[in-house]
Amino acid sequence: MKALVYHGPGRKSWDDVPDPSIQQPTDVIVRIDTTTICGTDLHILKGDVPAVTEGRILGHEGVGTIVETGSAVSSFEVGDRVIISCISACGSCSYCHQGLYAHCLAEEGASGIGWIFGHLIDGTQAELVRVPFADGTLHKVPEGVSDDAAVMLSDILPTGFEIGVRYGQVKPGDVVAVVGAGPVGLASMMTAGLYGASRVIALDLDPNRLDQALGFGATDAVNSGDADWLEQVMAMTDGYGVDVAIEAVGIPDTFTACTKMVRPGGHVANVGVHGAPVELALQDLWISDVAISMGLVSTSTTPMLLKLVAQHKLEAEKFATHHFSMDQFLEAYETFAAAADTKALKVVIRR
Amino acid sequence: MKALVYHGPGRKSWDDVPDPSIQQPTDVIVRIDTTTICGTDLHILKGDVPAVTEGRILGHEGVGTIVETGSAVSSFEVGDRVIISCISACGSCSYCHQGLYAHCLAEEGASGIGWIFGHLIDGTQAELVRVPFADGTLHKVPEGVSDDAAVMLSDILPTGFEIGVRYGQVKPGDVVAVVGAGPVGLASMMTAGLYGASRVIALDLDPNRLDQALGFGATDAVNSGDADWLEQVMAMTDGYGVDVAIEAVGIPDTFTACTKMVRPGGHVANVGVHGAPVELALQDLWISDVAISMGLVSTSTTPMLLKLVAQHKLEAEKFATHHFSMDQFLEAYETFAAAADTKALKVVIRR
Amino acid sequence: MKALVYHGPGRKSWDDVPDPSIQQPTDVIVRIDTTTICGTDLHILKGDVPAVTEGRILGHEGVGTIVETGSAVSSFEVGDRVIISCISACGSCSYCHQGLYAHCLAEEGASGIGWIFGHLIDGTQAELVRVPFADGTLHKVPEGVSDDAAVMLSDILPTGFEIGVRYGQVKPGDVVAVVGAGPVGLASMMTAGLYGASRVIALDLDPNRLDQALGFGATDAVNSGDADWLEQVMAMTDGYGVDVAIEAVGIPDTFTACTKMVRPGGHVANVGVHGAPVELALQDLWISDVAISMGLVSTSTTPMLLKLVAQHKLEAEKFATHHFSMDQFLEAYETFAAAADTKALKVVIRR
Amino acid sequence: MKALVYHGPGRKSWDDVPDPSIQQPTDVIVRIDTTTICGTDLHILKGDVPAVTEGRILGHEGVGTIVETGSAVSSFEVGDRVIISCISACGSCSYCHQGLYAHCLAEEGASGIGWIFGHLIDGTQAELVRVPFADGTLHKVPEGVSDDAAVMLSDILPTGFEIGVRYGQVKPGDVVAVVGAGPVGLASMMTAGLYGASRVIALDLDPNRLDQALGFGATDAVNSGDADWLEQVMAMTDGYGVDVAIEAVGIPDTFTACTKMVRPGGHVANVGVHGAPVELALQDLWISDVAISMGLVSTSTTPMLLKLVAQHKLEAEKFATHHFSMDQFLEAYETFAAAADTKALKVVIRR
Repeated sequence: MKALVYHGPGRKSWDDVPDPSIQQPTDVIVRIDTTTICGTDLHILKGDVPAVTEGRILGHEGVGTIVETGSAVSSFEVGDRVIISCISACGSCSYCHQGLYAHCLAEEGASGIGWIFGHLIDGTQAELVRVPFADGTLHKVPEGVSDDAAVMLSDILPTGFEIGVRYGQVKPGDVVAVVGAGPVGLASMMTAGLYGASRVIALDLDPNRLDQALGFGATDAVNSGDADWLEQVMAMTDGYGVDVAIEAVGIPDTFTACTKMVRPGGHVANVGVHGAPVELALQDLWISDVAISMGLVSTSTTPMLLKLVAQHKLEAEKFATHHFSMDQFLEAYETFAAAADTKALKVVIRR
Repeated sequence: MKALVYHGPGRKSWDDVPDPSIQQPTDVIVRIDTTTICGTDLHILKGDVPAVTEGRILGHEGVGTIVETGSAVSSFEVGDRVIISCISACGSCSYCHQGLYAHCLAEEGASGIGWIFGHLIDGTQAELVRVPFADGTLHKVPEGVSDDAAVMLSDILPTGFEIGVRYGQVKPGDVVAVVGAGPVGLASMMTAGLYGASRVIALDLDPNRLDQALGFGATDAVNSGDADWLEQVMAMTDGYGVDVAIEAVGIPDTFTACTKMVRPGGHVANVGVHGAPVELALQDLWISDVAISMGLVSTSTTPMLLKLVAQHKLEAEKFATHHFSMDQFLEAYETFAAAADTKALKVVIRR
Repeated sequence: MKALVYHGPGRKSWDDVPDPSIQQPTDVIVRIDTTTICGTDLHILKGDVPAVTEGRILGHEGVGTIVETGSAVSSFEVGDRVIISCISACGSCSYCHQGLYAHCLAEEGASGIGWIFGHLIDGTQAELVRVPFADGTLHKVPEGVSDDAAVMLSDILPTGFEIGVRYGQVKPGDVVAVVGAGPVGLASMMTAGLYGASRVIALDLDPNRLDQALGFGATDAVNSGDADWLEQVMAMTDGYGVDVAIEAVGIPDTFTACTKMVRPGGHVANVGVHGAPVELALQDLWISDVAISMGLVSTSTTPMLLKLVAQHKLEAEKFATHHFSMDQFLEAYETFAAAADTKALKVVIRR
Repeated sequence: MKALVYHGPGRKSWDDVPDPSIQQPTDVIVRIDTTTICGTDLHILKGDVPAVTEGRILGHEGVGTIVETGSAVSSFEVGDRVIISCISACGSCSYCHQGLYAHCLAEEGASGIGWIFGHLIDGTQAELVRVPFADGTLHKVPEGVSDDAAVMLSDILPTGFEIGVRYGQVKPGDVVAVVGAGPVGLASMMTAGLYGASRVIALDLDPNRLDQALGFGATDAVNSGDADWLEQVMAMTDGYGVDVAIEAVGIPDTFTACTKMVRPGGHVANVGVHGAPVELALQDLWISDVAISMGLVSTSTTPMLLKLVAQHKLEAEKFATHHFSMDQFLEAYETFAAAADTKALKVVIRR
């Protein structure tokens, strides 16, 4: 088959590689119909994720069709059209029993579990992929849900919802600020309405992204490069700050901005992937009754989000701004990497 | 009357001062029967809290008897024996409606509200005290509850419970670590059982305090000066870390220790009063599904804790290690300030 | 002034009566600008509520302007435009501290508190009304919110939301059935979206009401007179039943219908006012993991709902189908009582 | 092997039967070391549970040692000492993902799943038992936990806790009434302390059982045959009723008693197995803000309760009042059936 293979920092190619095969009775093989590229894939290509070794097929998002099942797979059969979650989980350890699939204690070969596709095992940017713990990783796609919509359920929509909206404990009437109007920030904006936010304020440095945000659930936009950005945000609340501030960038400045704009009793939900420590002003914040959360998506809400997509309550397909065929995979990467120019949100690659 | 007056950094005396009088229809005057000293009072005396000005009567804890009531006080009358909460609240603003009395939006004269006794208005280390918003500040003492027990409801017991145990979201079966076995840490240990903790691990540098901790609900003690303190804690869990880590000291090292010993999906509850920022290792923690909370007590749980004290489910009077009369007030301060030697937890000063 | 006075079962008139006056320092007098009629008023007129005595001015909903304030009122002043909640509460008893204002323990004269307007004291269907415990009963109307919208916050919108949606614990993705498409049922349908319901199924015997329901948030309509109504509902779920069934009629049959269509682990939220006991099939239900809730609105969510109305997230004014002036009050009653013919939802009576 | 076999209403015997064998790759075979008898077994013997057919081996509680494992069992191996839950679950259906194992959607042969032992498949009152879905049914017994304690984790302790205490939403400070001081009621009393109840009131007709209750966590006892039982209960609260009333009998009178003694805003948790409908006084209760719950145990809290048993926070072994060997099985049944005379709580039968 063909696959997108990582050959060390800065190097990737669309290669011929051997087909995957069933290794455990809980595995299935999926033929990829639609996949996409994540910001994390760009990090890997820069060499930022040393656990990813040369020769690894990238990608942890995808929609496809089952072509083979292991003997212990009980919920799926050949021919099923499925979403592949970015998280694989055994379903029977203590973390799985809590729904914290990201921290599943099971082992897959020599590696751990949780986020493994395109990381510890071969991923979804390929014609075929082996899926471990299939019963705990796959979701059937209901009739009437397009591939473009379904592939957003692999990672981005549950991440924005679980780590931004749910950990932020958004509740009806809340004013929610989302710092960073990239794909994951937009996913938080789109799903903030599921808990009845009264206002959703998008903050970003890029005016184009702020415009886009207004189509994804934001009610207001503030350019975080403005000298008076904090005053603008305060003017949209009762002057005490936002109820929930969601960090969707991953740098110290944006995290600190969140702690500044949150009201007493409010929540800061960190969604961004950070590479450096941040200074927490606990000398001011200890008295504030603020809670700060963080985490990796568990995809425990994927079935629920899928129901809302099927009912057209969430327009997941709006993230798919550019389309490619698999033999244009390198071009898809270029378009996604140049998002500031191309205005790409998610690039979709189809069989 | 006589009162303990602050005369600037390092200076205090037991002085003759004018009696307080009713200023607002919602005020009452309470004759203090029993009061105590808080670690915060020592901070004020060092000059660490600039909002406290010279001439201020100190103290925010006390039990007493009402001697006069304003015309709009509806729940109390002269002769009632009452606990004075360290937090005063109007009861009708949006924060009060959420039970976040510490952030009450009402104003008392030129100052704000919330923690005001011995801070923004005269406090409880006196023969008499004026209590603003009496209906939202006082609690009647039930029959059979001693002054020694009742005075622990002014601040220390609700602080340990609300900011440590409740914000830490302790649940049945949890392993809870409390860093710092001073009075407030002990209050968290004593109340962790209200949510069914399976183990409560006390950490401190002082072996005396660790011994004391075992009498306040701790099941295990670890000297945080030991090189292998973290390994000791991990050995008491399943190796993944504690469910809840409560910080009850107020310095960066103990806060960081909490973030190191907490398990994925766990909680860090900061109770300590911090004077400096802390470095948060978000590059490691972003993936951890940990929540970090902090705050000032709202005393919203005081009526509930008082019920448990009255039923002898909480032995609040155990905190009262030393007793003084009011004319020994300066001696009481000395004993409390030298807690490492005197083993004082709370010093109680009676009329 | 003029007022709508109850003269015993079946008799009411628009009479000259004395103006109300301040009786307690916590009272205010409000000039009514807009009021409406509740189904409960019709019950009272039938003689179903014996606590309402002859000579009582009816009505517990209204928007108006403050013309006089008692000396202890702290949050309002003359000239404020306000919503009058159907529930009055002291704000300082143990029930008020829990937000259960409907069960406020304070006393107002010889009567209790909670729902008192047009019940135990004179109500809002008048040119003027005395409002007890004004700080705990009134809400300022923000700029840009019409009287038509604001008056729906007195009772109907918080009732549908608190007793239907919140007690029913609606959560994102849920399938919610609402039995009874009258005003209160429609209020549940409109607010079910605040917790992200995936489908809202309206059930009623009247096809007109089912049509109306589709404009108030219902995604599907089922005529409960159909022999196969239950099969129709099951076909809209995965076959196991709805997540939440809201009863908004008040008779045994509709309550039982709710217990039949709810799934294992689901909720039945009773909003209807019942006049007779119901038979609960506990021999079947004991194993079902179903929870059944019921209650009187506390209006604790009114400030939040008002924020959403002001942001145009809830179109509260849609309930106002017919308008009258105060001298047409008897005609307004006729229109409302004949709702099956007039298709009236809420009739609005303006100064 | 030998087993306790049901031969139709009123008939049972300790018979020679064929050994069980692995049928599915997810099965294990357990050698029973310790088992017990449940009130449900007595119902079956009366013929009350028609799903139980002649020839069925009874029993759904047990502790034993694994002697054989299927090829897809991942968490257990031969020699493991295990608790057998009364509920079997697949771990991957939508109900299992919610922790509602009692409603697991998987199928086991021709039957459903959930409670199956001694019901739809052969049970644990035998020398050997086949355990389906072993990864979702068994729990390893930690060192230091006796068989007498462990066997109470099969059913009774999680039932009292999950359906009584958790569904009743007991919270710190609550006054909890438990109607029925049989084994399951005592399990609710013992575990009410895990959420910090201030008082636990036992109600029963039998003075012996009320005495026993005081050793299982009850703080007060009321004979429900007393004419003034309700006044006695009210005198133990503030006059408004208990916060949580737990029904642990299963007849209409005791259910109705619970709805009478619960306070506004409180909870009625039904644990009893009912054979007849009850009349719910909705004409009085609709205004009460009471929630009523019911359900079958899911055993989702068994690992947590086991941790507390291992830490000696719950003295589970106190339920084991009488001991027998397997060849005395019929005598064990007689002792249990005559509990009023023998004062038996749980009779324990050992290999």
